[in-house]
Amino acid sequence: MENTYKFAVIGGGSWATAIVKMLSENLDEIYWYMRSKSSIEHIRTQDHNPNYLSSVEFDVNQLHLSNDINEVVAAADYLIFAIPSAFVQKELNNLKISLKDKIIFSAIKGIVPESSLIVGEHFNLEYGVPDENFGVITGPCHAEEVALERLSYLTIACQDEEKAKIMAKHLQSDYITCKTSDDVTGTEYAAMLKNIYAIAAGIAHGLGYGDNFQSVLMSNAIREMKKFIKKVHKMKRNINDSAYLGDLLVTGYSVFSRNRMFGNMIGKGYTVKSAQMEMSMIAEGYYATESAYKINQEKGAKTPIINAVYNILYEGKNPKKVFKKLAEKLD
Amino acid sequence: MENTYKFAVIGGGSWATAIVKMLSENLDEIYWYMRSKSSIEHIRTQDHNPNYLSSVEFDVNQLHLSNDINEVVAAADYLIFAIPSAFVQKELNNLKISLKDKIIFSAIKGIVPESSLIVGEHFNLEYGVPDENFGVITGPCHAEEVALERLSYLTIACQDEEKAKIMAKHLQSDYITCKTSDDVTGTEYAAMLKNIYAIAAGIAHGLGYGDNFQSVLMSNAIREMKKFIKKVHKMKRNINDSAYLGDLLVTGYSVFSRNRMFGNMIGKGYTVKSAQMEMSMIAEGYYATESAYKINQEKGAKTPIINAVYNILYEGKNPKKVFKKLAEKLD
Repeated sequence: MENTYKFAVIGGGSWATAIVKMLSENLDEIYWYMRSKSSIEHIRTQDHNPNYLSSVEFDVNQLHLSNDINEVVAAADYLIFAIPSAFVQKELNNLKISLKDKIIFSAIKGIVPESSLIVGEHFNLEYGVPDENFGVITGPCHAEEVALERLSYLTIACQDEEKAKIMAKHLQSDYITCKTSDDVTGTEYAAMLKNIYAIAAGIAHGLGYGDNFQSVLMSNAIREMKKFIKKVHKMKRNINDSAYLGDLLVTGYSVFSRNRMFGNMIGKGYTVKSAQMEMSMIAEGYYATESAYKINQEKGAKTPIINAVYNILYEGKNPKKVFKKLAEKLD
Repeated sequence: MENTYKFAVIGGGSWATAIVKMLSENLDEIYWYMRSKSSIEHIRTQDHNPNYLSSVEFDVNQLHLSNDINEVVAAADYLIFAIPSAFVQKELNNLKISLKDKIIFSAIKGIVPESSLIVGEHFNLEYGVPDENFGVITGPCHAEEVALERLSYLTIACQDEEKAKIMAKHLQSDYITCKTSDDVTGTEYAAMLKNIYAIAAGIAHGLGYGDNFQSVLMSNAIREMKKFIKKVHKMKRNINDSAYLGDLLVTGYSVFSRNRMFGNMIGKGYTVKSAQMEMSMIAEGYYATESAYKINQEKGAKTPIINAVYNILYEGKNPKKVFKKLAEKLD
């Protein structure tokens, strides 16, 4: 493929690894930043990421690996951020290079805790990245299935359609189908909100609700998501497109979703702290819940599911009682 | 509960058994027709249906069991039909009593093969049941979870709101929440179409597609369902309500769905005949596929998923090839 742009991936987790795999189908060189020196060394010598999607074999000749974020950012035109939202700011703190002329795509699902902003707003307000230089890469897509080369669909959203198309062209392959969109804000919020609904699905499961309830919960969740996003960014969108409904379903129905797992433990009676300790990590939906709840205090969309999850996670309310009340509001 | 109406359930399967259980929470007497004399005898002596939801214990004093459909129909004002669509006509052939003054609710999901009509149209055109006397009971609801008294939501649709409300009042309980609707045709079609999409989900699974694809398939399915139903019966409806989207999800994501199982075997290479023999039954979605395809020949909605399933089941096309083409149409 003819290519005049350099692409970089920031992150060493499973989603970052999957994205590097996608790019490697189309590009001769990919810049790849990750923190861990030993992981980089492992990839260089063993051709695979030791910790994530380790079945994926890379041709290391295609990879410029580095644990220096400045080196990687300096080299590339298109930067794909694929790190948990909780660690974005920490990485950005090491940056000495301006992002103003970079084209940034976020593959992050969530809110930046330090600023309580979605990633696009964070880059815009804190780093001066103009809106037309920011885009979003969103699923429905489990990284594990990319590793297996199972057909998956991505939505690439950017206000500048050309940039969305360029990104799409570099990600798609036999097993990746890309669609472009101009709803950057909507897809970002959808990706964030779905994690809250996955927590809700987990709580319900933990409390003993069954599949009938789960389907009603998801049906209410997508209606709630529509209302919420409409309040934040009103435009014509079909909420049943894959980037919204598909993404909700792949997470809400996944027993591997960390958010759903976290919710499940809460439903089974763990405290937030003990669930987080048990999982040795914090589910992204945990932060998303607080942010969405607070944003909605101003916006005033009717969001009984988000409120219920907030009441449980942040106000210590009893999950069983909260869900009994929530169930009365669903239909 | 004060009650001046007599209720009857026609059918001896799991959904019929679940509905009798729901009614038994509210009524002192329920008329219950089933074909099998030995099942009736078993329920009378052992308090449970020997073949379906056998964990559900009935108080037999509440039940007027009979294998004479005329006796049961004669005794009741509200008739709930809960038999597979393939056997509806066979049962109706035994009827010597007019249905014109009966209020009929269908808990049947599918098309009557003999007339190629949805159940409401069949009763209307073949038995002179006026539209305002016909209603639909629809999920999302697995009968097995009703047996376990897990919270489930039903939609009761009837053009005559009073009748929908009366039916709702008699079905709801601690674990059943009912909502009424006036979209009889839409909910009937949704219940029928979702079985086709469940077959499609099964075929995809059988062919080795993963969860990412499944979520895209469901996201496309609900958009396709919306278009189809709009062509058949245009009215204001939210396709993401539980009766449409919820019902699609509970079936499309259920590994126990017979339609999904049937599709799975087709995807794995079974012929239609061998899959049907192996399952010792015909999945309702099989008939639904042909009917929906033919109806849509006139209506002209864009239905790539229904077409793909039709091509495979009725034209002997290769599932792998058909789904490869279908996948290109999804987004």
